[in-house]
Amino acid sequence: MAFQYKAPQRDIQFVMHDVLGLENLYAGLPKFADTNRELIDSIVEAGAQFCEGELAPLNRSGDEEGCTFNNGEVTTPKGFKEAYAKYVELGFGALSAEPEHGGQGLPPTIGIALSEMMGTANWSFGMYPGLSHGAINTVEAHGTPEQKETYLTKLVSGEWTGTMCLTEPHAGSDLGIIRTKAEPNADGSYAITGTKIFISAGEHDLADNIIHITLARLPDAPKGTKGISLFIVPKFLPDGTRNTVACGSIEHKMGIKASATCVMNFDNAKGFLIGPPNRGLNCMFTFMNTARIGTAIQGLAAAEGSFQGALEYARDRLAMRALSGPAFPEKEADPIIVHPAVRQLLLTQKAFAEGGRLLCYWLSTQNDVIQGSESEEARKQADELLSFLTPIAKAFLTEVGYESANHGVQVYGGHGFIREWGMEQIVRDTRIALLYEGTTQIQALDLLGRKVLQTQGGLLKNFTRIVHKFAEANKDNAELAQFLTPLTALNKEWGDLTMKIGMKAMQNPNEVGAAAVDYLFYSGYVTLAYLWALMAKTAQDKIAAGEGDKAFYEAKIKTAQFYFKKILPRTKGHVEAIDGGLDVLMQMDVESFAF
Amino acid sequence: MAFQYKAPQRDIQFVMHDVLGLENLYAGLPKFADTNRELIDSIVEAGAQFCEGELAPLNRSGDEEGCTFNNGEVTTPKGFKEAYAKYVELGFGALSAEPEHGGQGLPPTIGIALSEMMGTANWSFGMYPGLSHGAINTVEAHGTPEQKETYLTKLVSGEWTGTMCLTEPHAGSDLGIIRTKAEPNADGSYAITGTKIFISAGEHDLADNIIHITLARLPDAPKGTKGISLFIVPKFLPDGTRNTVACGSIEHKMGIKASATCVMNFDNAKGFLIGPPNRGLNCMFTFMNTARIGTAIQGLAAAEGSFQGALEYARDRLAMRALSGPAFPEKEADPIIVHPAVRQLLLTQKAFAEGGRLLCYWLSTQNDVIQGSESEEARKQADELLSFLTPIAKAFLTEVGYESANHGVQVYGGHGFIREWGMEQIVRDTRIALLYEGTTQIQALDLLGRKVLQTQGGLLKNFTRIVHKFAEANKDNAELAQFLTPLTALNKEWGDLTMKIGMKAMQNPNEVGAAAVDYLFYSGYVTLAYLWALMAKTAQDKIAAGEGDKAFYEAKIKTAQFYFKKILPRTKGHVEAIDGGLDVLMQMDVESFAF
Repeated sequence: MAFQYKAPQRDIQFVMHDVLGLENLYAGLPKFADTNRELIDSIVEAGAQFCEGELAPLNRSGDEEGCTFNNGEVTTPKGFKEAYAKYVELGFGALSAEPEHGGQGLPPTIGIALSEMMGTANWSFGMYPGLSHGAINTVEAHGTPEQKETYLTKLVSGEWTGTMCLTEPHAGSDLGIIRTKAEPNADGSYAITGTKIFISAGEHDLADNIIHITLARLPDAPKGTKGISLFIVPKFLPDGTRNTVACGSIEHKMGIKASATCVMNFDNAKGFLIGPPNRGLNCMFTFMNTARIGTAIQGLAAAEGSFQGALEYARDRLAMRALSGPAFPEKEADPIIVHPAVRQLLLTQKAFAEGGRLLCYWLSTQNDVIQGSESEEARKQADELLSFLTPIAKAFLTEVGYESANHGVQVYGGHGFIREWGMEQIVRDTRIALLYEGTTQIQALDLLGRKVLQTQGGLLKNFTRIVHKFAEANKDNAELAQFLTPLTALNKEWGDLTMKIGMKAMQNPNEVGAAAVDYLFYSGYVTLAYLWALMAKTAQDKIAAGEGDKAFYEAKIKTAQFYFKKILPRTKGHVEAIDGGLDVLMQMDVESFAF
Repeated sequence: MAFQYKAPQRDIQFVMHDVLGLENLYAGLPKFADTNRELIDSIVEAGAQFCEGELAPLNRSGDEEGCTFNNGEVTTPKGFKEAYAKYVELGFGALSAEPEHGGQGLPPTIGIALSEMMGTANWSFGMYPGLSHGAINTVEAHGTPEQKETYLTKLVSGEWTGTMCLTEPHAGSDLGIIRTKAEPNADGSYAITGTKIFISAGEHDLADNIIHITLARLPDAPKGTKGISLFIVPKFLPDGTRNTVACGSIEHKMGIKASATCVMNFDNAKGFLIGPPNRGLNCMFTFMNTARIGTAIQGLAAAEGSFQGALEYARDRLAMRALSGPAFPEKEADPIIVHPAVRQLLLTQKAFAEGGRLLCYWLSTQNDVIQGSESEEARKQADELLSFLTPIAKAFLTEVGYESANHGVQVYGGHGFIREWGMEQIVRDTRIALLYEGTTQIQALDLLGRKVLQTQGGLLKNFTRIVHKFAEANKDNAELAQFLTPLTALNKEWGDLTMKIGMKAMQNPNEVGAAAVDYLFYSGYVTLAYLWALMAKTAQDKIAAGEGDKAFYEAKIKTAQFYFKKILPRTKGHVEAIDGGLDVLMQMDVESFAF
């Protein structure tokens, strides 16, 4: 009874071609110059078929069955092994990897489209190859030639998978206090000892080997974040021996039950240093940015999937009459999509799904530029934009994606609470996205503290300049004024707000923490406002040119209007909450919270 | 590892005695004149012991085990039967029922305190006796003397339980289209045939008999809501025969897994008409108002429970340093309660839990007055206030309770997603509260359409007058100005906003639907602002009088300050979203939502 996932190929094409003009972009990036529209569309179509046909049907059953743990081994739900084999066979894991180790060398954004479709069809499944990407990126960026030789080909093909072993029972966001030890062995390797928790894909039955990228401390390493090194710890060593890293148990979770979340015990496991000693956290950031975009996609996937389900139900389910009189007098009641409050839920999901899609893909094109451009200036600009937008995409999109998932349940009424309809699963699966890869609160501090204030507003100005240029270029476009007038005002307010917080923060650094989360939401709503204005402009151009399906483009403009009138007002509350200041947060004694 | 529930007796006493002055209130209601403070506190304390000692320990295990269905029979999780027997033995079911059938005749508000504590300790358990209350109220209000004689004593004692059988597979919110039939039998009873779904406590192993209060249609009944009658359909007939009503299956749900949600098949089951023919829906409203307050309490319970868990964790968990410098330099990191963003989550939970408590109890005192007052005018006023506040309490408190539950997960970081900590269970258990007993959207229509606009703003004016009087009475109180100034502005804005919507609605009734949900949230935030101002004033008086624990009262004032500075700003967004109007919701063709 759960809804049938249908990959939104039309909208993906709109984002990729109409808005972002990928073919043009890649023509200017020699490394990716062969990636033309035909190739892109054919990959998206192949991905769509795989996700609709193989992954979506395993989503509910995977949730019901979950992973099972038995004596160190993890069994994935029925069908996952076969689907993963097909994924490897179809070469989907290798899309964006470097060609020298078997990758197809395509721009990262092509992989993002696949990640979106896999994620919406079956988020738990996507976790297994998703984690491998992080390991691949880390080895590509920091591995020695020998390490690349040993690990990359099989990671890229998907015959092996990877993990990132960071968290420990007492240390999550605060990696500076991890305790796992790495003692040098005589042969140049290290003996790794410690316990890691929350390790996604730490153990499973999908692949022949699992490569754990692991944070640990060398003997006499400095305290804190500057004393952490990175190690490759394979489940099976290159000579085939079983290493002494083992799964101790798996977690029982709210959602993503088909994704194994493992406790990993390292008992003098053999590890190999990757990157310079004590610089592990820096090396890790390579991975973390990828992971954060990957998690942002979970917000997009939640909005898209729950929207698809809710739309189907809202068109079918009959209840009550339209307030303006029966819309379908011949039926015993009207379909619930006639009700404004139901439409508000659906349009909210739609605005976040489609706006979130553009944000993720646009963000990803910055990676395309970083990897493919020969201009240092272009790479620097892309890197700064990526750096600024990553915490917004990660935190804001997962928050509004979770909101959208809840709207999906709401449209179904009581049926939304019943497992067989699939709506509540999206809520449960998505809840983790606000937590892993840095909570919303951590992302908010990253945005306001590190990205905005530490650059004296430089990264923010880069962005507001883009918005300003867009508004200037279209200032005589009367039909865009409905978007550009409020957008321009917000663009200015954003700077003023930042200045005000910055001044207060000079007096007391806690002001940053007090403002950060509201500031993050504010930034997210404004960022999406820019992207919706951009989509409206694109649609307007297409309609004027008489190209494509007019109804499709008109729907874009209508959704933009909805976004500006019904969602963007939320910025008001965040501005005033920031004005509310720090004192009301700090004045309560720890003992006085409860009596 | 899940947190230990501790009944908030101190805060319940604050609400009952300091703010609402129950002893005084009851002194003026002859029926309840014996209910003094000592009696109230002793019942709350007995309830607290039962909830902490018997119910809370079954909450996690009940969720893991769930109910099981086998051949028409439902088994509740381990320990539920014994706990229910104890509940009956302690007489908790009989607190607020009429003495002539074994009730203790206490004011409804005393029962509300017990409902809150049971609900926070173990919502699923509370569903079983909770549903009985609805059946008891219905039989008390509409039953014949014989029906009362036959059913009430055992329902009141708890030996039997009750249900409300409304929903059918195709009819939830829209009861006008139900199809269950009632054919007259020769003996004056009726043969009931049809299928009801989502019947909480429809079948279980806790009680000897189950009394189903059932909606069905008489032959030739008018179409729609005016052709529905109400029937008593017992599982076992008064002569001991097993009736032909049976559980066909139970639902697999997101949460409240220890509460059996049943499909009930009526196969010529013997039923007895209660209340006048074709007036079943009106009789049902008696019950529905009780059920809606009961569901509002689920929002309060979610906020309270998740706050207790999150507070404990935030005091214990060490991660990062305070932005203003190490708070506990001797520890390896600071407890996360030092971070403003964590405090914002905790204070939000606290503000909704304590504000929600006062709203529920205050609402309930209107029932005390309705049942106990000898003044018709007082009863009318109470009834109107109850009528106005019920959709606000039901929808707003469940929404912000659900938000609070999610904050609980957020404070725990990744651990919040793990079942053993208990935080994610509160999210799953609470999600249904936004759906059953009328969704948020239905409540919003009830508030704006029926309660506000259909009374030409009369019910709203009753309320704003209370706020106005409060502000006037305290206008020279300099320390209250921080609350009264914004509250007075909102009180006026509320009226203006209503007028504006009312004018637009005269042109197009869909305007009501477009504004309703934002209007409901707005109304909720303003209502809670009044209650927080009232609590601040109460605390101020206590401090001035040197009575009680000063730190407790100071915390009340600080929480009020937090609420006004950090939560109340949300009203801005809702006002502007209402201004955003109807068109952006309606202009999208049904076919253009997706391509």
